Amino acid sequence: MADGNRAVVFANPQDMQVENLDFPKLEMPDGAKAPHGVILKIVATNICGSDLHIYRGSFPVPQGMVMGHEMTGQVVELGSDVTFLKEGDLVSVPFNVACGRCRNCRARRTEICETTNPDVACAAYGFNLGNWQGGQAEYLFVPYADFQLLRFPDKDQAMEKIRDLALLSDILPTAFHGLMEAGAKPGSTVYIAGAGPVGRCGAAAARLLGASCIIVGDYHKDRLDLMKQNGCETIDLNEDVPLTDQIEAILGEPMVDCAVDYVGSEAHGIGREAGDMDPAHAINQVMDATRPGGATGIIGVYGPDPLAESKAEQEGTFPLDFGKAWIKSPRISGGQAPIMHYNRELMMAILWDRMPYLSDMLNTKIISLDDAPDAYATFDKGASDKFIIDPHGLIPA
Amino acid sequence: MADGNRAVVFANPQDMQVENLDFPKLEMPDGAKAPHGVILKIVATNICGSDLHIYRGSFPVPQGMVMGHEMTGQVVELGSDVTFLKEGDLVSVPFNVACGRCRNCRARRTEICETTNPDVACAAYGFNLGNWQGGQAEYLFVPYADFQLLRFPDKDQAMEKIRDLALLSDILPTAFHGLMEAGAKPGSTVYIAGAGPVGRCGAAAARLLGASCIIVGDYHKDRLDLMKQNGCETIDLNEDVPLTDQIEAILGEPMVDCAVDYVGSEAHGIGREAGDMDPAHAINQVMDATRPGGATGIIGVYGPDPLAESKAEQEGTFPLDFGKAWIKSPRISGGQAPIMHYNRELMMAILWDRMPYLSDMLNTKIISLDDAPDAYATFDKGASDKFIIDPHGLIPA
Amino acid sequence: MADGNRAVVFANPQDMQVENLDFPKLEMPDGAKAPHGVILKIVATNICGSDLHIYRGSFPVPQGMVMGHEMTGQVVELGSDVTFLKEGDLVSVPFNVACGRCRNCRARRTEICETTNPDVACAAYGFNLGNWQGGQAEYLFVPYADFQLLRFPDKDQAMEKIRDLALLSDILPTAFHGLMEAGAKPGSTVYIAGAGPVGRCGAAAARLLGASCIIVGDYHKDRLDLMKQNGCETIDLNEDVPLTDQIEAILGEPMVDCAVDYVGSEAHGIGREAGDMDPAHAINQVMDATRPGGATGIIGVYGPDPLAESKAEQEGTFPLDFGKAWIKSPRISGGQAPIMHYNRELMMAILWDRMPYLSDMLNTKIISLDDAPDAYATFDKGASDKFIIDPHGLIPA
Amino acid sequence: MADGNRAVVFANPQDMQVENLDFPKLEMPDGAKAPHGVILKIVATNICGSDLHIYRGSFPVPQGMVMGHEMTGQVVELGSDVTFLKEGDLVSVPFNVACGRCRNCRARRTEICETTNPDVACAAYGFNLGNWQGGQAEYLFVPYADFQLLRFPDKDQAMEKIRDLALLSDILPTAFHGLMEAGAKPGSTVYIAGAGPVGRCGAAAARLLGASCIIVGDYHKDRLDLMKQNGCETIDLNEDVPLTDQIEAILGEPMVDCAVDYVGSEAHGIGREAGDMDPAHAINQVMDATRPGGATGIIGVYGPDPLAESKAEQEGTFPLDFGKAWIKSPRISGGQAPIMHYNRELMMAILWDRMPYLSDMLNTKIISLDDAPDAYATFDKGASDKFIIDPHGLIPA
Repeated sequence: MADGNRAVVFANPQDMQVENLDFPKLEMPDGAKAPHGVILKIVATNICGSDLHIYRGSFPVPQGMVMGHEMTGQVVELGSDVTFLKEGDLVSVPFNVACGRCRNCRARRTEICETTNPDVACAAYGFNLGNWQGGQAEYLFVPYADFQLLRFPDKDQAMEKIRDLALLSDILPTAFHGLMEAGAKPGSTVYIAGAGPVGRCGAAAARLLGASCIIVGDYHKDRLDLMKQNGCETIDLNEDVPLTDQIEAILGEPMVDCAVDYVGSEAHGIGREAGDMDPAHAINQVMDATRPGGATGIIGVYGPDPLAESKAEQEGTFPLDFGKAWIKSPRISGGQAPIMHYNRELMMAILWDRMPYLSDMLNTKIISLDDAPDAYATFDKGASDKFIIDPHGLIPA
Repeated sequence: MADGNRAVVFANPQDMQVENLDFPKLEMPDGAKAPHGVILKIVATNICGSDLHIYRGSFPVPQGMVMGHEMTGQVVELGSDVTFLKEGDLVSVPFNVACGRCRNCRARRTEICETTNPDVACAAYGFNLGNWQGGQAEYLFVPYADFQLLRFPDKDQAMEKIRDLALLSDILPTAFHGLMEAGAKPGSTVYIAGAGPVGRCGAAAARLLGASCIIVGDYHKDRLDLMKQNGCETIDLNEDVPLTDQIEAILGEPMVDCAVDYVGSEAHGIGREAGDMDPAHAINQVMDATRPGGATGIIGVYGPDPLAESKAEQEGTFPLDFGKAWIKSPRISGGQAPIMHYNRELMMAILWDRMPYLSDMLNTKIISLDDAPDAYATFDKGASDKFIIDPHGLIPA
Repeated sequence: MADGNRAVVFANPQDMQVENLDFPKLEMPDGAKAPHGVILKIVATNICGSDLHIYRGSFPVPQGMVMGHEMTGQVVELGSDVTFLKEGDLVSVPFNVACGRCRNCRARRTEICETTNPDVACAAYGFNLGNWQGGQAEYLFVPYADFQLLRFPDKDQAMEKIRDLALLSDILPTAFHGLMEAGAKPGSTVYIAGAGPVGRCGAAAARLLGASCIIVGDYHKDRLDLMKQNGCETIDLNEDVPLTDQIEAILGEPMVDCAVDYVGSEAHGIGREAGDMDPAHAINQVMDATRPGGATGIIGVYGPDPLAESKAEQEGTFPLDFGKAWIKSPRISGGQAPIMHYNRELMMAILWDRMPYLSDMLNTKIISLDDAPDAYATFDKGASDKFIIDPHGLIPA
Repeated sequence: MADGNRAVVFANPQDMQVENLDFPKLEMPDGAKAPHGVILKIVATNICGSDLHIYRGSFPVPQGMVMGHEMTGQVVELGSDVTFLKEGDLVSVPFNVACGRCRNCRARRTEICETTNPDVACAAYGFNLGNWQGGQAEYLFVPYADFQLLRFPDKDQAMEKIRDLALLSDILPTAFHGLMEAGAKPGSTVYIAGAGPVGRCGAAAARLLGASCIIVGDYHKDRLDLMKQNGCETIDLNEDVPLTDQIEAILGEPMVDCAVDYVGSEAHGIGREAGDMDPAHAINQVMDATRPGGATGIIGVYGPDPLAESKAEQEGTFPLDFGKAWIKSPRISGGQAPIMHYNRELMMAILWDRMPYLSDMLNTKIISLDDAPDAYATFDKGASDKFIIDPHGLIPA
């Protein structure tokens, strides 16, 4: 057994570091024994767009916190109350930490577990939401393992598809959740705001579920190219043309059945205002782009933002065009995705080769732990890669 | 056959008048023939809280428009393509005008019919939404009658319960819709913002569907008394105590499963700010009062409001605490209710005596057409009555 | 701590006995340690209609098995991995034994837990489904306690309503599930086949959820009287008139929106054939009574029945009128109810006094452990009581 | 305007004939005027598996009835109350005749329209269900045209994809409905009983909606080959191996999430019994193949069958293994599909090229009206073609 744990930690805004920490224990953040927990040897652990909120300093976390909430790993140690997993199992970790025992978990709402975060009903690894250490590391402690972990049925088969399966921990189910909240189904027309990794997963998930016209909007040409090459229509938000006009040019009507905001409050304007921050821009655009009776998913993160310019936004209040939208009978859903709601089914779709376009659309790149700090900087500049850290060099080239 | 049509018309803000108009024809607002339409002799036609938006001038309508969108009546004339109704049938008119033939109507979304309002996909009688004359009158033209009208199975039985059945045209199904959008079901805890007639119908509907703790908040003591006497908990919003604290005092936790805003943008603050207009107050309060994973219905009307103080609100933009709520995975739904989705089932509940508390909670008062202008003024001051106009003196005392 | 455990055990068909057994341990049926389990001191444990299948011998169980699957009790001992319960908590036990960790439990389908019964994916206490001892006893071992148990928020308040709350372990949520599977909602017309305790709970649940016309059919006059006195219509199945004609006489049309079979394969015919066993009678009647587009719930138990007359029925094959029903677009759902899906909400409805008619409709009678064998015989004759065993004399008169 | 109407009519079992009839009128079957109707010039009209029930004589129809219920055509004449269609529009006709005005149509249940068939609440063209003439003809009368018809947005684009779009009238939405009733979603494992045209559409629809493992069972090698070449697993039912064993060999477990019966009561046994009729075989097989908690769709037609051997089956009673399935919490849905529920979205999926495999899987073959009688005989022998009649020679090669 290893006796240390090399990990990516938050030092300061714009400053991630790789440090050597202690090997994790079967213990809760408050030090209580965790007979329901396991230790994982990490096989793949991705850098997520929401890690950039921490990197930039807009989501404050304690110095020294281990980063990372998108983990796939192998069980190396089990608590006494873990019954249905065994050593060597290869598993995907849902980024939400969830007990499986509270009212919300019983109702499949693991993204708002009532017990794993003492402050708000929402916990995550590597995110200052319940003091859970992250998994951009060699090893990770996972509580409530029997409940939480998704076991791959065949390890060898899974290692062959690990670049795709690594997305099950967060962004593929998260993106899918956005579409479900927006009411997407076979034949729907869909607008996807933002072609970062989650938005690109949204486009891939929209293809999987049989959406008809899938339109993706972004500012980065290389991201949009990935979309265009894989069956999507694209909108360049640098163009000084209203979004609904651009949609109409593609679709024949100025709005879609379902629209999802994969951007959040670090949004910019459109056209001549593309350089300006406009925290409510993305959410107002997706509301505007949704047809009467359609629905809107808000996957992009909103919240009290200490770096926002206005006091209102610092407290989590945004100027929303809800009065404009009201006549259209809008339905708007936000919040984190309950990964467990979707990860098994999406795993099945990947294992049966129903998403052959996934790696292409995501543009996944395997890196080492030591490469991670640089990858944060590259990703922050809007690169079209999805970085997967391979801490033990286990992923085949 | 009558040759005139006495009706309540909008003259100016704060000034409704009774005028003698021409008997209606089987014709659309643009003059086209309407073989699918009928003429109704009105039996009951209610004054609605949303009529007050017109009365106050915040929802502009043309001078001379006939008011009213909550009608119950008797068929007196039928177009050549009306097959399933016959002269003498007593029917309830859903306030949404809907063709039954467009994409949205086919999908049961009659509140956003694509054809009955040339401007936005949302039409209503007496509301400057598609140029439909209202029904606070002796007679009314209704298009697409076979599709739209709800026929009462037994006319005599219906006349006995007409005070309750008259609510099927709008506020009872509307209130029920708010609860459905908020995910209410047997055992749910519910917060109802506003004890006007729609909010009171919301409380009654919550009882019907088996909600557990039903909490109603308002500023008017007599409205709250109607609620307290009929199985609800109440919150006096004049008290200078945060809403969530008041909920906690009743329920043991500071939030409910489902919350519905029955107020809209003509809202006031709470406690010391109860006298001040605060257009986003009600919506922010219901978001705040909803537990993580709960849902929020926005039945109160929002929209571009020419009388609002700020330019943003004039255009329909409101400062919403969506960033505060995001971590709770909120689902927020707004818009008009598709009455046809609910009116038949609610009629059945009334006919089988499952809402014996309804009249008590609503405090219905029957008036004549000539009493209507005064009733607007009384209602505008926050009276706890629900006014039902009986233009022909047909309702038994 | 007690050192024994008096319990009702199955000796032979028609022969239940009270025996003194060992105090239960925190151990699974196969002897494995159960750190996730608790021991309960039983406060209320009911005799269920499905216990009669065992009593009559049609559902074979091993000699000496402790009977009972409807338990309410107090936590007296906790395993090392029970975190969210504490000694003294008063809890309701869902009759389904469920691990909370398998694919089905994660999807809220606790009635088909994949791990708690090695043979079929369906486990229950006191039922030879997974070797779980029953709870008609002084004490009971419950595994996966944090996940499974429903804690009453206030013990004193709960003891005052214990006759109603004791129904949460099985028959009230089970009955409610039947209505959900049948698509019941406010305003629905409902037919309830069978006025035994589950059927009577079905009628009570239909009232709770706002059904309009609730029709109950049975052969026993005193059972039907309980229904008639509490807001239901009734049909005496001894009358030699087709069911649909009797429904039409009440409702004006020969069918209902939703029908639920609360009888199962120990059914009899109607009218002149009321004395004859006819295993598919109840299910065929509810299919026949359901309107086109309506749905049918099959809560009554069907299965391979060793006591059935025909070989087909012994193997679980029944002559169903599915070809007759097909043109009506039937939806038919069977199986055990996932209690955890409903018990918290129904508890809330009881605690907030929304089912004041429940005790009346159920006609609950509190008995001692020693009275239980006789109560089985009385119940088997069609008594209109619901027997609740109070092993420690804790229930106030 | 044409003055005659050449059409395929039923002469006798095994004997279809092409006859010259009168040009249709805007009249209902009872002779009443139909201002809501249109006359279509037929562009494509398919032979359906359910037409074979008529061909074989198991579904009796009057001599001389025009066959056909799968029509695509061009509007050539409009009634006075048709507002939203115009001459020249190319439209798809849902096979269900539906008024759009009754309780069921208002609730989107057009397959059980209460008014278009005086006998049972279920009407169809060319099917002795309401006396509607079929559309295997040059021209067709369609009532309630504004409500019923699906207009293709661009006629030229539509003519290019007409082989696929012609399936929207029945079998593609019907197949999709079966999957919806079986609860299929992205990642589901699916078993499809029967690789006739509807079953093949089921496999194609399962691909569209992102199902993972799609298994199709049939007796005809060439039908199975079409499936294997297009991303499905196949089971040859001539093999003398239980179905669940064959599923296990493919999937690693002996059952699927969702199973759909696309066969109906003209089923055969498996393996050595493959030559024998066994009317309940298909339905019992799909119930058996469905996992606990899964759902089963019954698209294959069941009903009183005058040609069945047993009296029970003649009356519509079948020996179903419901007692065997009950412990698995089955949900079983049957009946015709409400085409309008799905056809618009599936049209969008086709127009945006999301089903490139559809023509391949269906193996569509265009024939003339005069070829139709022979095509019935060929199809009856189990050919792997889907025949589309092109009465006016309008479909490009």
